[in-house]
Amino acid sequence: MEEKLTELKRLLGEVYDLNGALSLLHWDQSTYMPSEGAAARGRQMAVLEKISHEKMTNPRMGQLLEELMPYEESLPYDSDEASLIRVARRKFEKANRIPSSFMAEMANHGAQTMQAWTEARPADDFSKVRPYLEKSLEYSRKLADFFPGYDHIADPLIDFEDEGMKSATLRRLFSDLRGELVPLVKAVTEQEPVDDSCLRKFYPEKGQWDFGVDVIQRLGYDFNRGRQDKTPHPFMIKFSLGDIRITTRVDEYNLGDGLLSTIHESGHAMYEQGIDKSFEGTPLADGTSAGVHESQSRLWENIVGRSREFWEYFYPRLQQVFPEQLDSVSLDTFHRAINKVQPSLIRTESDELTYNLHVMIRFDLELAMLEGKLAIKDLPEAWRERYRSDLGVVSNDDKDGVLQDVHWFMSATVGGSFQGYTLGNILSAQFYKQALKAHPEITGQIREGSFHTLHSWLTENIYRHGSKYTADELTKKVTGSALDIDPYIRYLKGKFGQLYSL
Amino acid sequence: MEEKLTELKRLLGEVYDLNGALSLLHWDQSTYMPSEGAAARGRQMAVLEKISHEKMTNPRMGQLLEELMPYEESLPYDSDEASLIRVARRKFEKANRIPSSFMAEMANHGAQTMQAWTEARPADDFSKVRPYLEKSLEYSRKLADFFPGYDHIADPLIDFEDEGMKSATLRRLFSDLRGELVPLVKAVTEQEPVDDSCLRKFYPEKGQWDFGVDVIQRLGYDFNRGRQDKTPHPFMIKFSLGDIRITTRVDEYNLGDGLLSTIHESGHAMYEQGIDKSFEGTPLADGTSAGVHESQSRLWENIVGRSREFWEYFYPRLQQVFPEQLDSVSLDTFHRAINKVQPSLIRTESDELTYNLHVMIRFDLELAMLEGKLAIKDLPEAWRERYRSDLGVVSNDDKDGVLQDVHWFMSATVGGSFQGYTLGNILSAQFYKQALKAHPEITGQIREGSFHTLHSWLTENIYRHGSKYTADELTKKVTGSALDIDPYIRYLKGKFGQLYSL
Repeated sequence: MEEKLTELKRLLGEVYDLNGALSLLHWDQSTYMPSEGAAARGRQMAVLEKISHEKMTNPRMGQLLEELMPYEESLPYDSDEASLIRVARRKFEKANRIPSSFMAEMANHGAQTMQAWTEARPADDFSKVRPYLEKSLEYSRKLADFFPGYDHIADPLIDFEDEGMKSATLRRLFSDLRGELVPLVKAVTEQEPVDDSCLRKFYPEKGQWDFGVDVIQRLGYDFNRGRQDKTPHPFMIKFSLGDIRITTRVDEYNLGDGLLSTIHESGHAMYEQGIDKSFEGTPLADGTSAGVHESQSRLWENIVGRSREFWEYFYPRLQQVFPEQLDSVSLDTFHRAINKVQPSLIRTESDELTYNLHVMIRFDLELAMLEGKLAIKDLPEAWRERYRSDLGVVSNDDKDGVLQDVHWFMSATVGGSFQGYTLGNILSAQFYKQALKAHPEITGQIREGSFHTLHSWLTENIYRHGSKYTADELTKKVTGSALDIDPYIRYLKGKFGQLYSL
Repeated sequence: MEEKLTELKRLLGEVYDLNGALSLLHWDQSTYMPSEGAAARGRQMAVLEKISHEKMTNPRMGQLLEELMPYEESLPYDSDEASLIRVARRKFEKANRIPSSFMAEMANHGAQTMQAWTEARPADDFSKVRPYLEKSLEYSRKLADFFPGYDHIADPLIDFEDEGMKSATLRRLFSDLRGELVPLVKAVTEQEPVDDSCLRKFYPEKGQWDFGVDVIQRLGYDFNRGRQDKTPHPFMIKFSLGDIRITTRVDEYNLGDGLLSTIHESGHAMYEQGIDKSFEGTPLADGTSAGVHESQSRLWENIVGRSREFWEYFYPRLQQVFPEQLDSVSLDTFHRAINKVQPSLIRTESDELTYNLHVMIRFDLELAMLEGKLAIKDLPEAWRERYRSDLGVVSNDDKDGVLQDVHWFMSATVGGSFQGYTLGNILSAQFYKQALKAHPEITGQIREGSFHTLHSWLTENIYRHGSKYTADELTKKVTGSALDIDPYIRYLKGKFGQLYSL
């Protein structure tokens, strides 16, 4: 058994390292690649994708997994070895349903769609991506059909990102959340708008950058195992447990944007950096789901990074960096500014309250497309319609409408790409509540710029487990209950009730 | 035949793209990778090396090459298709001698050695790399033994870099060159030393960087198909014909160092950027040998970049960038300073005359190690001994001694890594003489900051051919004769005779 497990780990390790290399190709494409490198980069990624998938579906892998089943069953469910075999089997079975040739086709179509979007968005021309998106919808349906027996055609696609989650559950959950959010947003937006002009002064890039780096180092992001670079769309990417990078953007006329992106991505990265080092090279060395991942980015970005106690510590430091801009601005004004609620067109720039409404629009449109109720040609208008009804704002163009997010254009499928954001918001409050219950001193520590207790609690309870537990298992283990919107609603009502004296 | 050639190209294309990905892993390791990323990077490179090697030695490739032989023979020798099949066959046969597992082992050992050197050099601690180097020597011997029938154990290693070149030939050649160089160096160093203090003022990094970028753009380096980053040890690296990058270093108290490194690497890069675009994805899309490659970096760095006419154009521009430092320094003084001859410890900072003596020391030590006449433990002392006897200077530490060059530490072998530099110097003069013969107006154009004629001549006669011709074939085709030290000796005697009024 020992030998079989060693062989399995060796095979999994090759896939892991190939995927690490593939991630570097992506990272470089977004950061430093010269324009003329694009064609070859597409080919390089396609060949690595293909080899990685071939290796992940190697019949020898299936044989080993089968032979190791009695051994797995002899071990405790949450032992590292049983978990490794269990998670590897799930990944193998999933990968094995999809033919390599289909993967290669999808990779190729995804690259073409991405290229089309890169041109369509600045040109504000939906017609340029329409045929690609129509084909993506076909691919999405075909992909789902490799997993027969689903309740809803979106379920297999959602399962890739948030294992075990289903459309029906999400619909109920989102409907409940919506019922709470809409009146809250209404109550806030009926008041005098918050003045956030203090964020819109000129803030030179270097000061912003250095301040952000200082902040995330204090939070616990380890630069010996990572780095930060600049991209228009911030992201976190992992090459190995020793190399987990983030990117951010800097807008010299928008102080909050870059800093909170930095904190957001560092949240993703601290999750990955906190994974048990002994999991390196195995499928356990990965965040367990899109939702849990997002819970960590949102916890650090919003619950911590937009909190009053966080800025009690950091605001005087920020004033030292930008004395001219901020000396006459009070902590109160600043704190209200970075928490300003205002329905707007762009998801990534939206506030904590309206953010989920953006997500739900996309989620509902995905389901409608997959169900065949919404044709791609009608998507731009459906988008506008939902923004009008849900947020009360409408974009005149598609650039800031249906073309704003990369998600539907960065791969060959539409579906399963957005629910994780709202799941993450919900989970972030559930987890944070639990952290405070175990360590009520955390709030006071944040006020003093100390994040060690929180970071350690998250590492101990969430990060170190990697993919050992599913999102559902982990949630129950950490909080004692399943996914639950209550703590999130209470957090939002508490925070915005106070800020807006509701 | 058409179909077979298409299939061959497809198989070669996969190898090409895998190697492009592999090069990105190397580039990132040297530029941006955080320290803790090293272990996984070694594994990632090993797995890609292994797969690339497996694909290069795919029996189907051998079969196709055999079946295409009559077709190849029916074509003119220097047709693109015949050349593709011929060069692919040579690469296939070479790769086929080495087991894939050995390739992977070497890649992994190379990465570890590189990491050890990265720590050993600043710590001035040879003992940290000694065990790695001992293992590298073993690997070098094993690698050579996959090519039985050699005259000298270094020959197969040299052949990887400079195909067809042999130790015996090089020994003779280097001995002839040495016979000319030593008296020339002696004559120069007997004179009053040149004052190069104008280069040792404080030159802020940004000014140096921007000036360098401007220079190489004028020479013909295309930033749409490349970029420049900073590394302690400058290099050129290619991911595809659309993405050929260089690195440089900047010493704020040494003006010549960074700029001439930038020009040097741009010379390598312009060679690769000039390769016929139709060769993309095939083994023809590569410089043909280390020596020819170096001929291009040295031609641009020394023959052009240290020439009087080059600085007649650029010196007034450099003075505009650094008026405080240079306004009182005449062109004569500056030109003499960047051509100062002085035996010194560091190869990459050495002048044109003594440079080859540095190379010969390394070449001889490599042969001695491979012959078993020099043990790794005795290498630091042997290094010092040769510097004392050949250059009359001795380093007290190993940092600037045996640890100074990355070459013996960047791969899993020692041997064949240095002869290309001197071959390149020799060839650079041969090629330049030919360019001037065809276009005597080149010198005058350089004086006016125009490099188009020279760049076009090099592209037409050398760059575009990629690996179509061997170094020997190319040399004969371009110059009408074989490798010949005469033009190089004449160039050095002319230039330094004038500078030092010999």
